[in-house]
Amino acid sequence: MQLQIGSSRITKKTSRLPHEIILVHCPDEVGLIHRITGVLASQQLNIESNQEFVDVTTSHFFFRAEVSLSTSCSTQSPAQLKNALAHVLPEQASIRIVSCEPRPVVICATQEPHCLGELLLLNAVGELPGRIVAVISNYNSLRKLVERFDVPFHLVSHEQITREEHEQRVAELIDTYMPETIVLARYMRVLTNNFVDRYSGQLINIHHSFLPAFVGAAPYRQAFERGVKVIGATAHYVTAELDAGPIIAQDVIPVDHSFTSRQMAQAGRDVEKIVLAKAVRLVLEDRIFVHSGRTVVFS
Amino acid sequence: MQLQIGSSRITKKTSRLPHEIILVHCPDEVGLIHRITGVLASQQLNIESNQEFVDVTTSHFFFRAEVSLSTSCSTQSPAQLKNALAHVLPEQASIRIVSCEPRPVVICATQEPHCLGELLLLNAVGELPGRIVAVISNYNSLRKLVERFDVPFHLVSHEQITREEHEQRVAELIDTYMPETIVLARYMRVLTNNFVDRYSGQLINIHHSFLPAFVGAAPYRQAFERGVKVIGATAHYVTAELDAGPIIAQDVIPVDHSFTSRQMAQAGRDVEKIVLAKAVRLVLEDRIFVHSGRTVVFS
Amino acid sequence: MQLQIGSSRITKKTSRLPHEIILVHCPDEVGLIHRITGVLASQQLNIESNQEFVDVTTSHFFFRAEVSLSTSCSTQSPAQLKNALAHVLPEQASIRIVSCEPRPVVICATQEPHCLGELLLLNAVGELPGRIVAVISNYNSLRKLVERFDVPFHLVSHEQITREEHEQRVAELIDTYMPETIVLARYMRVLTNNFVDRYSGQLINIHHSFLPAFVGAAPYRQAFERGVKVIGATAHYVTAELDAGPIIAQDVIPVDHSFTSRQMAQAGRDVEKIVLAKAVRLVLEDRIFVHSGRTVVFS
Amino acid sequence: MQLQIGSSRITKKTSRLPHEIILVHCPDEVGLIHRITGVLASQQLNIESNQEFVDVTTSHFFFRAEVSLSTSCSTQSPAQLKNALAHVLPEQASIRIVSCEPRPVVICATQEPHCLGELLLLNAVGELPGRIVAVISNYNSLRKLVERFDVPFHLVSHEQITREEHEQRVAELIDTYMPETIVLARYMRVLTNNFVDRYSGQLINIHHSFLPAFVGAAPYRQAFERGVKVIGATAHYVTAELDAGPIIAQDVIPVDHSFTSRQMAQAGRDVEKIVLAKAVRLVLEDRIFVHSGRTVVFS
Repeated sequence: MQLQIGSSRITKKTSRLPHEIILVHCPDEVGLIHRITGVLASQQLNIESNQEFVDVTTSHFFFRAEVSLSTSCSTQSPAQLKNALAHVLPEQASIRIVSCEPRPVVICATQEPHCLGELLLLNAVGELPGRIVAVISNYNSLRKLVERFDVPFHLVSHEQITREEHEQRVAELIDTYMPETIVLARYMRVLTNNFVDRYSGQLINIHHSFLPAFVGAAPYRQAFERGVKVIGATAHYVTAELDAGPIIAQDVIPVDHSFTSRQMAQAGRDVEKIVLAKAVRLVLEDRIFVHSGRTVVFS
Repeated sequence: MQLQIGSSRITKKTSRLPHEIILVHCPDEVGLIHRITGVLASQQLNIESNQEFVDVTTSHFFFRAEVSLSTSCSTQSPAQLKNALAHVLPEQASIRIVSCEPRPVVICATQEPHCLGELLLLNAVGELPGRIVAVISNYNSLRKLVERFDVPFHLVSHEQITREEHEQRVAELIDTYMPETIVLARYMRVLTNNFVDRYSGQLINIHHSFLPAFVGAAPYRQAFERGVKVIGATAHYVTAELDAGPIIAQDVIPVDHSFTSRQMAQAGRDVEKIVLAKAVRLVLEDRIFVHSGRTVVFS
Repeated sequence: MQLQIGSSRITKKTSRLPHEIILVHCPDEVGLIHRITGVLASQQLNIESNQEFVDVTTSHFFFRAEVSLSTSCSTQSPAQLKNALAHVLPEQASIRIVSCEPRPVVICATQEPHCLGELLLLNAVGELPGRIVAVISNYNSLRKLVERFDVPFHLVSHEQITREEHEQRVAELIDTYMPETIVLARYMRVLTNNFVDRYSGQLINIHHSFLPAFVGAAPYRQAFERGVKVIGATAHYVTAELDAGPIIAQDVIPVDHSFTSRQMAQAGRDVEKIVLAKAVRLVLEDRIFVHSGRTVVFS
Repeated sequence: MQLQIGSSRITKKTSRLPHEIILVHCPDEVGLIHRITGVLASQQLNIESNQEFVDVTTSHFFFRAEVSLSTSCSTQSPAQLKNALAHVLPEQASIRIVSCEPRPVVICATQEPHCLGELLLLNAVGELPGRIVAVISNYNSLRKLVERFDVPFHLVSHEQITREEHEQRVAELIDTYMPETIVLARYMRVLTNNFVDRYSGQLINIHHSFLPAFVGAAPYRQAFERGVKVIGATAHYVTAELDAGPIIAQDVIPVDHSFTSRQMAQAGRDVEKIVLAKAVRLVLEDRIFVHSGRTVVFS
């Protein structure tokens, strides 16, 4: 399914990613890094890189390491490593050991091709650290674009069924692919709390953002009328409160009075696809913690 | 490329600026540029640069030209030029002829030095196309900073008087300087409609801007809690509706999870001073039209 | 705000673009705009937007207008309009009348998919104001990517033939498509002066750019060793002097010490594709003049 | 000498800075963080924040922590802490313990006020994490600007003496202030290797940077003629090889064809002062390591 640019590309991707990623967060206390690195050293794990952060406001500790196994040894499994870490860490510690297999991603979209296309393209040329396994849409208009990339396209129409029924069908489809991450690439459906809860921590959304914010319909019309000078985009995890989930990435691009509202919308699409691609890469490389409604991003 | 702080600077500034700036806006119709440039050509005015824009949404025409007089001739005054232009333009046309003298600016501030200091510094080193003639504050804490630059500092305390009395005293002080532009450089006073009307089109304000916008107190605390990834600033004309006046300039700077709310506030100050300085320069070079609540900026 | 990939898109594009674009440049003299707009007014042409610039250093005048015909009249052809303009302009004036048909573009590439893919994607979703009619490569590795988009892919191997023979074959292929614009999307061939001359003003190239510039092989290795903090890209017209043609667009993205040279190369690819797409859009919308080795970009 | 914005400002600065900064770098080996944090834990030092980085290319380890002492205990001195760390680290390890006193800075300038003024202003309003103790110039033209801020200004004319004699006088003056950091804020003197060696690792310089780079005189004239679309600035440590020292910070700002070479120079000054201020703040907060000609910046 993936474009091969000669075999060297495969090698590049593999060698670029480490063998295991270790993610730990817990209430801060003295000596945490000392204890974690003690476990790693005792198992002859080579720390390729690590990042650590203490949020002094909430007194919470975050740790991410990319480690490689010494060749000769280490018959230990990730589960055993996790146990060993749990043994030295506070009870409330969250510990994740992630292998570097590219993980499956499902994309939900509606009718706009810009964000979806960008992700499909990155996937096709080997620049997405994951694997898009399916696209689900409530319209048929994106089918051709998706099929260009040999990715399965599923139409789940929302017509003549309830919101709950529609979500149920979408969820059943999603589940057949067992993705860890579901990207809402301009998926123009209001989600029920039920759906959001079902995929808690797995849903990533993108929306345009303005200074100041505009409520109500036709935001680009409002942005035009207000004469804004930048247009932004925000990628975030989805939570029950609409558009208020933890922010993963944001950026803006400049516009000026000569932009019509249609050209502002074009600028908005340009920045949306860049910000969403950045966020999806960060998520797929396991560089993000969510805690107390905020992200810690080890980029 | 060298800068002299002294009289030579004046020469440079003068030579950089054209002799006259012509600003016209009116409902669009066929042949407007033809008619304007006809008047200029007939008076042997040399167009050093010009910019023209038609807002197709409102069907409104904007024109700005920097012109120089041919040496030999042109005993015509700006008033005569304006008359000649009015003669060929629609009745509703707004016509301004501005000479390139650096114009007086008054700054109102409260206690924060970052925006005020930036403007005073640009003024001192000859990089502001205007002249700061006074600073007015409702506290005394910025006095020393202002006096470093040999600019008059006026304390107008708001204590033990009504808002209206305070504004009246400030206005009387402002009026002694006859400024065309009044910059609110973090002036933390709510203005009455009366004051805003009195200086309609003359008041420039700066405020921090967030994606998403935060209402209520302690915005940096909220920005921190929401984990924003950019912090912005907006410079705008002041109108009766708070913070909703026509936008002159906007920009953002990146922040991340490692910023405390105090460091976010520092980042906010950094971007505020850059955006305000940009806006003030644009205003003082007469590069801005305001129409239908939006600016047209010929930068 | 919704995008239809299908025939409705054409309508949108057409309605967004004006009916004719008029481009004039010539040595500056008094009254040029007056004369041009006089011709337009006399033909009942509606100026949708126009931009004008005088390069005071070279005393050269540039003018671009988007005009629409009044419905009732105007049996005049573009050729007649051009004649009418030539009649009132200096002899040396360059005058172009361009209709708004999306024009054919040929892309030359070698083995890297990022720039090529971005252009193919924009083309597929209707966000490129032109039409990619063919891709030519000296390797076969990009074939699959191109064919995903139903665009003809031509392999012209450079093996076992001279540079001149290879270029001759490429040129013959290009000419069958009669493109106005040829985009070198990471086309890693040194071009002969002969080839550059043959397509003078039609070739657009993209290359990475560093502060400071690095000469010699492995620039990303050098950028890494020097610890640069930004990586840039430059899109430019191709002239005989390598990489010294008129610049169309430039931008940079931030990097830091944690980037390996491979990750710097990834960052470089990200900015290259953004800058090239921007440049190609500007070219296809006829927003660029080239004069005295510089571009004037009416964006 | 410093502007006091009420006593709260002092508090803010003090509370913002940690009590001690620990900087370690050495060849990487297993268990380094474990050993360092073990020493810190055993001394009841609270890690407020820390950052760690392994440069896998050179296999070199970098560590920075901000630590606070528990109130009740710790009669240990920085020297004792350093010894304890040295005891557990490789012999080649570089260990620095820095207290958070704002450190003295000397600025060398020539005639341009923009970078100097920005630093003086930040210093005056309490936004520079250091203390400017003197300005030295080979011209007298900046005296007034410096004296506005009650900072000693020293004229050391280069006329009628050799380069070596001039540098000797400058060095003697610098040494009376015992600064750790010397900022060359557009100091237009070619430095001898002797001078550079004397202040190895202490000299910070700013210069404009272009894409592409321009050699020879009048770079802004060249940038104009080449029609560049961005203008940048680079702040770096000074080494024997001119402008090739380790890069601390870089940024660019957009320009276009409408900028004269004088306006490009203005844009260059704007970005220079922003980049230099950023670099000086990073240096004064001890966020920078230099190794193998590159910086590691823990921002």
